[in-house]
Parts: sequence; structure tokens; C-alpha cells
Amino acid sequence: MRLQSEKKVTVRDKVIGGPDLLICLPLVAETLADLLSQAKELKALAPDLLEWRIDGYGGVEDIDDSLEALRQLRATIEDIPLIFTCRIDREGGMKKIGREIRLRLITAAVDSGLPDIVDIEMRNETDFIEAVKKTAAGSGAKLILSYHNFDETPDEAFICGKLQQAQELGADIAKVAVMPKGYEDVLTLLSAALKARVKSLKIPMVTMSMGAEGGLTRLAGGLFGTDITFAIGKTSSAPGQIPIAILRQAMTALYV
Amino acid sequence: MRLQSEKKVTVRDKVIGGPDLLICLPLVAETLADLLSQAKELKALAPDLLEWRIDGYGGVEDIDDSLEALRQLRATIEDIPLIFTCRIDREGGMKKIGREIRLRLITAAVDSGLPDIVDIEMRNETDFIEAVKKTAAGSGAKLILSYHNFDETPDEAFICGKLQQAQELGADIAKVAVMPKGYEDVLTLLSAALKARVKSLKIPMVTMSMGAEGGLTRLAGGLFGTDITFAIGKTSSAPGQIPIAILRQAMTALYV
Repeated sequence: MRLQSEKKVTVRDKVIGGPDLLICLPLVAETLADLLSQAKELKALAPDLLEWRIDGYGGVEDIDDSLEALRQLRATIEDIPLIFTCRIDREGGMKKIGREIRLRLITAAVDSGLPDIVDIEMRNETDFIEAVKKTAAGSGAKLILSYHNFDETPDEAFICGKLQQAQELGADIAKVAVMPKGYEDVLTLLSAALKARVKSLKIPMVTMSMGAEGGLTRLAGGLFGTDITFAIGKTSSAPGQIPIAILRQAMTALYV
Repeated sequence: MRLQSEKKVTVRDKVIGGPDLLICLPLVAETLADLLSQAKELKALAPDLLEWRIDGYGGVEDIDDSLEALRQLRATIEDIPLIFTCRIDREGGMKKIGREIRLRLITAAVDSGLPDIVDIEMRNETDFIEAVKKTAAGSGAKLILSYHNFDETPDEAFICGKLQQAQELGADIAKVAVMPKGYEDVLTLLSAALKARVKSLKIPMVTMSMGAEGGLTRLAGGLFGTDITFAIGKTSSAPGQIPIAILRQAMTALYV
């Protein structure tokens, strides 16, 4: 029986932090046509959630273009819960985007009511985080506050601290993604997630160890307190993701 | 890339401790007819190894009957490497079998040259272990010395110690199977296996956390130094085993 979160976050008909580990598929596309055709393909795989990584989109710096794409994306995926994410280069994102244009894009997207969840990095300035939080509160979108480290795996206390910090900053969901240098680091991430879940964290969380060595956490993380895992539908958005069909089949054996 | 053992053990064409995590399927059958029909079915699944748990066999206390069954089993499975194991009740086995008859059965089986590997518990008396070791040395069979704990998961140092003890007692392969009380114990087993593999153990090993919670170690253990995993072909021989088809598919995603 997997560990559940004390607080649940419900988006459309999906309960994040409930009995099931949810599967999210990333949408990464340069053009609107690609985005929509990918969205159709991924919808057919019936994921629990989709995440649009808008930093992979060619028109990301044109807010009108991006909002129109978001509208068409929503019409295509119908009622699948959608995470809206715009990471910049230093956060592991695909583009360098100026702070102001990024903040305007994210708040406009969240304000449109089209995404169900928005994910931003905790390393953003306080006023940036507060502006997104306020807009999300207004439109009813849920907030993921995330920490990414593409270089290494900090120690257990640091990881627990980041999850706790997300909760204290008012996130609905806390996220930590770190890079292992060996299998010991993979155990550190799983152990930190388990401790946070059991001891301090009341909100749902998303944690993973990235890269090939961390692939295991994308499958087993749900047993250690993780509530959403990212899998490959058509393309991956981070190293170590597993194809959704393999993930689902393995989950039938491990989540009993 | 999974961790390999410094020493390899080759039985027929299979390298234990090499680049691949090997899959072993257990044979558990009350009658000879069942044993042979099960053996045929399992052979079709092309496992790397088979293990005959003779303690599940009705004729286990009749040495002639058992040896004849072993001969027919070998003829059926042809050149699939075979582990011969007779556990008694206090070792998690299926029957209470007297010490003398058990020792005679095991040494006769090993002496026949039909099994490639024999597995006995380290808790057996020194003279028992020495007698099996000597017979195995004579017939060329490899020796697994194992530690099982169906009640709990001892700490990391204890588990590493048991693996080390098997090596010092002259085992070709060390085995530890323990029962978790929660997911923390699952991490303890994986961490102990990894430490043993990296720091002290030169021979191949088989480690697992049992039960539903430990299922993960049957899939991922190979990344942490385990060289053989037990899966379900037709029947399981211990709690938490995963069906071979699911295990294989998940391995394609994790062992990269």
C-alpha cells in the first residue's frame, strides 16, 4: 500500500496525493501544429495529467501566440488536467527568456483559467513567486513550487528542507528533481522523500532522481511518497523517463 | 550500467556476476508429474536458471525417489542451469525434514552431478556445511550459502556481515533474503547490497527484500549488486516475486 499525502489536491477528476501514483506526460513541441498533433497522440494514451513545457515552444515570447496555442491545446486535450510550465535555461529549461516577459506569460496563462496547475522554481525571487501565487489563487490554479539540481544530489536533510520550504511558501504541491552520481544518490532521494512524507510534509509531492540511474525512482517513487511521475508518451522532457506502457505494467506488479 | 561482481561464476553458458542480472524461476511441485509438466512450461519461458525447491516435493524423504525425479527433471530442462535447494520449516521451507536424511539427500543430489548449484542456509552446523561443500567440490557444483529472515530486516552492517560470512565460509555465491516492515527496510537492504558489492564482497550475490513492499528489490536489485533475481513463472516460492514477463519488460527500461 503506497503512502498517501495528508492533504489531497483534486484537479478535475484526479486526486493528487491519494491512493494512486498519477502519470503525467510532457508535451514538448516547437510549433503549434506539432503541439496539437502530439496532444492528440498523448490523449489517446489516457495519462492522468499532461504538462506543457512551453519553454520548448517557438512562440513562447509572444504572449498572444502562446495564449492562443494554450486555448487550442485545451480544446484538444478536453478535460485532462494540465500543468503549465515555463522553465528557463538555468532551471534546466530549453530557452533563455527574460524575467518580465516570463512573468507576464505565466500570469496571463494562469489567469486564463486554461491550465489546472502551474509549476515554477523556488529559486525565483519572492515577488515573482508571490505574483504567480496571487494569480493562481484568483483563477483557481494549483501551484507547484519546485527545486531542480542537474549537477548532483544534495544530502537527505537538504532535500527534505526543500520540500518543506515549498510547503511553507504556500505551494499546493512540492517538487524536487535531482541528479545522481551513483546508485547511492538514488537511495538518498528515495529516503528523503519517505522521511518528508512520514515526518513533515502535509501536501502532495513530486520527487525524482534523474538520469538513467534514477529511472527507478520514476517507477518506485510512488511507494516512497511521490504523487506524480513523469513518463514518456512521445518525447521525454528530462533524462531517465520511462515509456508509459512499461511504467504502467511494472506498476501493476509493484503497487499492490 | 549495473555493478558487476569481481569474481564470476559460470554455470553452463550463464555468467553469474557478469553484465546481466539473471532471472531464476522456482519449481515447486508435490508430484513428479506436476514437477515435469511445470518444468516444461518454465523451460518455454527461457529463464536463465531454474531452482528446484525439493522441500515442496512429496517424495523428498525418499532419496531414490528424489534422485529419479532429479534425473527426469534434468532430462526435461536439458541444459538450463539448475539450483537444488532443500529448505526446512525453520528456514522458510515447506516441510520439517530430519537433519540426517536432509544431509544425505543433498549430498546424494549434488554428487549425482545433475544440479549445477546447491543452496544451503548458513545457520546449518559447520559439519553440515562442510559436508555439502566437500561434495560440491567433488562434483563441480557451485555453492550458495544463504541467510533468510522472514521476521524482519536486520541493519545494514548485519546484512553486509552475512554476505561477508558466506564468502569467508567458502561460498561461490552469497545470498540474503530479509522481510521488510516498511519501505525504509527496503532501502536498508538495497543500501547494504550496494555497500557489500562496492567495498568487500568479491563473489556474486543474491539479495532481496521479501513481501509486497520488497517487490521493488526483485526488479531493481541488480542495479545495487544483486546477480540473480527470482521471478514467478507458474508459481512463486517466496512472497513478493514478480511475473517474469513484467520483470523482463521493466528491466529493459531500468537496466540501460
